Amino acid sequence: MSAGAARETADAAKERLRLWLRLLKLSRMIEGDLRERLRSEHETTLPRFDVMAALYRAEAGMKMSQLSGALRVSNGNITGIVDRLVADGMVVRAQVEGDRRAMLVRLTKRGREVFAALAAEHENWVDGLLAEVGPEEARALSGTLKRIADHLEEGAAG
Amino acid sequence: MSAGAARETADAAKERLRLWLRLLKLSRMIEGDLRERLRSEHETTLPRFDVMAALYRAEAGMKMSQLSGALRVSNGNITGIVDRLVADGMVVRAQVEGDRRAMLVRLTKRGREVFAALAAEHENWVDGLLAEVGPEEARALSGTLKRIADHLEEGAAG
Repeated sequence: MSAGAARETADAAKERLRLWLRLLKLSRMIEGDLRERLRSEHETTLPRFDVMAALYRAEAGMKMSQLSGALRVSNGNITGIVDRLVADGMVVRAQVEGDRRAMLVRLTKRGREVFAALAAEHENWVDGLLAEVGPEEARALSGTLKRIADHLEEGAAG
Repeated sequence: MSAGAARETADAAKERLRLWLRLLKLSRMIEGDLRERLRSEHETTLPRFDVMAALYRAEAGMKMSQLSGALRVSNGNITGIVDRLVADGMVVRAQVEGDRRAMLVRLTKRGREVFAALAAEHENWVDGLLAEVGPEEARALSGTLKRIADHLEEGAAG
């Protein structure tokens, strides 16, 4: 590699590192803000919110293994969160027809109502935090981030 | 608000929510990958890497309060990580001149060497993960993410 090409490669690596550090910083800032609001305004946590969000999307319910696959959190944590949601009347466990060993978890009617209200508020918070980003720019940025994530997923699978 | 304006507002909120979810997903994917490589290739953790990075930048050392301010992690965690780094010979504690109660922590010569090697590898990992993003695009994206973060910080301070 020529000296010029080597410098370009090094510069590109620096730019990508800076991009990662900026991405991480922004993500942590927003996540910290949302975590704090969930705690102070709803006495709830981000992992619990994530579990409810996954179950809300899967109306028919999910196996615990599907739930942990969707959330990429340790199974132990998810079990504890689901236990607590069951105790709070937000989630029920039910046996899968024809497979006695498999259990499904799904939101109760009340769980769906509570999550829907929380999700609407969460959307408002995010809207406020990112108010400075216009809808067109938000769409373009989303597209770029998705492209990068898709590429990473292909790399991980390949 | 007219029906059309209300729909535009709702659409903008959806775009911002999607942007946040994409940002979070990408950030978690990259963070998970880096965490795993630090663990499997260097038997170390991301919080420990972050503490060393902050101390590497502050050559003269930092007070524990400055360190936790810079990292926004609970003091308890940082104390444990610093204790471990001291035990491993990577960090030393020293009293601040003229302030007997304040202690500085700083990297040892060996700590600086170890971190410099790790940081170079970390930069290579990030460069590989984001290889798909050209340097120009990386610079533009960094600028946008910084603008959003700066705006959030102003909002938090104001």
